[in-house]
Amino acid sequence: MRVLGIDPGSIVTGYGIVEKVQERYIDVTHGEIKLKRGLLFTASLEKVYNELFSIIEGERPDAVAIEDIFYGKNIKSLIKQGHVRGVAILAGSKHHLPVFEYTPLEVKKAVVGYGRAEKIQVQKMIQVMMKFSELPPEDASDAIAVAICHINHQKKVSI
Amino acid sequence: MRVLGIDPGSIVTGYGIVEKVQERYIDVTHGEIKLKRGLLFTASLEKVYNELFSIIEGERPDAVAIEDIFYGKNIKSLIKQGHVRGVAILAGSKHHLPVFEYTPLEVKKAVVGYGRAEKIQVQKMIQVMMKFSELPPEDASDAIAVAICHINHQKKVSI
Repeated sequence: MRVLGIDPGSIVTGYGIVEKVQERYIDVTHGEIKLKRGLLFTASLEKVYNELFSIIEGERPDAVAIEDIFYGKNIKSLIKQGHVRGVAILAGSKHHLPVFEYTPLEVKKAVVGYGRAEKIQVQKMIQVMMKFSELPPEDASDAIAVAICHINHQKKVSI
Repeated sequence: MRVLGIDPGSIVTGYGIVEKVQERYIDVTHGEIKLKRGLLFTASLEKVYNELFSIIEGERPDAVAIEDIFYGKNIKSLIKQGHVRGVAILAGSKHHLPVFEYTPLEVKKAVVGYGRAEKIQVQKMIQVMMKFSELPPEDASDAIAVAICHINHQKKVSI
């Protein structure tokens, strides 16, 4: 099973495609889509959609797992993140992939073992699990973590 | 100038294309995209995107005017609306159209004359302005109102 994990953000959207082969996790691809300051919002949404669309087209994952919004931030930023998350979900849906969502708590529990883990702990754990020589970037780590979360705790119901 | 107005919602998204010819407003098309209960969220986002994409393709507006989110509702609903608004903006952006946003206050001011107008007042005013024989549906009225708002108060800066 090959899963595309997405951590959508109003500035940086992390992504990571993970495949589990026997007991090993394979890093198919991962990275971050960064939205430059001053880029039009329309162009930003299109950039996130187009990049995710191409990645899915090229790597053909079986499912998309996306991180749910964490409600702790200010409302304007949450709504902006909602827009980005909307086009990210659409990129999966346009490829007829089921999309599953996991809360940040579920994701952290799945990879670090407890829900209150720090970002750096997630990064370190992903480095070990994926056998990366270096610490992966923060948002790509989160995206890989969502993918691993789905591989191990597959929800039955897609959104 | 031909403008597509959009009033995005988590359940109903209104749209209306208005063209101003001399001093008359022409109703090119208008309607509502309704999301059925029980439809997957992925399918809902795709439906809104696909329908708006086709409408733009068929009617070739010069610009998109979209209503900004009204912050009075509960946060979950606002974020859901953010997702819908994201794919609606993407539909315009994919056609290389500039997208302009107006607050509900600006829209009401533009058509009824003051920002605290009731929904029914907007509907009645749109009926008169567009010479409709019947009262147009609520969300389509709002969308037509956003289009008229942009035609008359063109913002210089798109989002």
